[in-house]
Amino acid sequence: MNIVVLSGGVGGARFLSGLISLVDCADLTVVGNVGDDQEVLGLHVSPDLDTVLYTLAGVADGEKGWGRADETREALATVSILGGEDWFGLGDRDIGLHLVRTQLLHQGVSLSDITDSFRRSLGVACAIIPATNDRLRTSIRSGAEVFPFQEWFVARQHRDPVDAVEYVGASAASPAPGIEKAIEAADLIFITPSNPFTSIGSILAVDGIRSALMRRTAPCVAVSPLIGGRAVKGPAGEMMQRLCGGAGPADIASFYAGAIDVILYDSLDGAVELPQGVHGIADDILMDGETGRRRVAEAALRGAATIA
Amino acid sequence: MNIVVLSGGVGGARFLSGLISLVDCADLTVVGNVGDDQEVLGLHVSPDLDTVLYTLAGVADGEKGWGRADETREALATVSILGGEDWFGLGDRDIGLHLVRTQLLHQGVSLSDITDSFRRSLGVACAIIPATNDRLRTSIRSGAEVFPFQEWFVARQHRDPVDAVEYVGASAASPAPGIEKAIEAADLIFITPSNPFTSIGSILAVDGIRSALMRRTAPCVAVSPLIGGRAVKGPAGEMMQRLCGGAGPADIASFYAGAIDVILYDSLDGAVELPQGVHGIADDILMDGETGRRRVAEAALRGAATIA
Repeated sequence: MNIVVLSGGVGGARFLSGLISLVDCADLTVVGNVGDDQEVLGLHVSPDLDTVLYTLAGVADGEKGWGRADETREALATVSILGGEDWFGLGDRDIGLHLVRTQLLHQGVSLSDITDSFRRSLGVACAIIPATNDRLRTSIRSGAEVFPFQEWFVARQHRDPVDAVEYVGASAASPAPGIEKAIEAADLIFITPSNPFTSIGSILAVDGIRSALMRRTAPCVAVSPLIGGRAVKGPAGEMMQRLCGGAGPADIASFYAGAIDVILYDSLDGAVELPQGVHGIADDILMDGETGRRRVAEAALRGAATIA
Repeated sequence: MNIVVLSGGVGGARFLSGLISLVDCADLTVVGNVGDDQEVLGLHVSPDLDTVLYTLAGVADGEKGWGRADETREALATVSILGGEDWFGLGDRDIGLHLVRTQLLHQGVSLSDITDSFRRSLGVACAIIPATNDRLRTSIRSGAEVFPFQEWFVARQHRDPVDAVEYVGASAASPAPGIEKAIEAADLIFITPSNPFTSIGSILAVDGIRSALMRRTAPCVAVSPLIGGRAVKGPAGEMMQRLCGGAGPADIASFYAGAIDVILYDSLDGAVELPQGVHGIADDILMDGETGRRRVAEAALRGAATIA
């Protein structure tokens, strides 16, 4: 069984943790978002990739959803005292990883090779592949201003209304090695309940990935990140509303038009008319605790079965 | 009272901690060694400068003599797990400082401005100035091999016998701003009990510093780093023996010929014939604990008084 999962950060990792309670982790190929990668203190930080990595390795902070469990913050406390760049919440173990990654990148090792080495070191059985090894960065346009994603999301706490999302570098970006083949060989494809614009859109902005997905032979199931038109956390609801004119299952399905066969959405969102060619299944999609994550993954597998 | 102190790392910091129990810290200008600076994990580490900084700020690890007290090592533990560069013992708070320094250096801020900002942030009253803002690195020649200082000292635990010490970049290096003026305006100058080759020699290798010292009007007192021909810790004794043919007070005084007026050495080393122009004073120079450090600083001040 080959399963490809296009994943964002926190929501994606939660879905994945449910999924690996049902299928063999080694069957998965996770394609991760790099649009929110950010240079912090000279370190190359890949928040979404790392959230997936930490979660699959069982070392993630389950409560926050990002970063590592039992993390100390001594380095960042010192950075603050010295007047350094302290807006991005880096823990000490997390910094250890960023140091190694940044050094390897400077030595010319690709992000995908680094990520693969990390997941092996942390005992993760499945492939985790960044969408691209090329530079691709999501930026947020709000009125006349343009913010790098993390500046808008973390430093400005996504308070500026979004007029456009741009994937800088996407047109020149190639899929990282292995992604297209994994999609071709897939028996199942999932899109995690993540922000369509800032977590998944930046993956689909890579031409080779989008076109591989369009040519897919396996069913692709997207899990809606919205319940009652709102994300459990984060700005996905407002963004869908403002940029797509709605935040219902149909709007999500339209956003993924041509790339998905099934959308799993919350029963709270009622009966909906979906775009042609997209099957809907409604369920309780709140990923509350282990049970909730497992339930959502089960529903997604059921959704795939309706097509296969 | 203006006091200039040419200082190495651990021994230098211990001497300084004794000295500031006797004189106002604000009266000091510490000129620090950068010959042992090292890039580790992409970070610019300045071990000797930081040992001085941490000691004067009261946050040093008193036992080890280097690094910070109550330090955690979570980042480095992660680096090890991921197969990264873990040979150099960096603590988490220490890494916080290196991150800020490295980022500022990349932004074009000088090492001396960075060091000054750090000492202010950490509440250190006296100036701490790196010998130079230019690139100057000590390397160790052993037979046909040449090692960067820290590789020889830390990674190889200084096991290779030293045939020569080279200060790469010294001939093109200028003293950092303020050093020459501080030496000219000094009422007293000290050379700390540090390795003459690897801690002080790399400072004196900067022409502007050596010549300012040669022109001094203030008495300069060197404290021997050797007791009974051996350093309390480190390879200074063996190096003096091999490279200067002896490890007694006269050998140290000859090494500093022209730059010092007084040498403070241990009573254990007995009566010695010193080079012309150098006065000797013998005392117990073991810096054991607070009392010992204070005693040595007192003896050094007494030594200066014999000239002034």
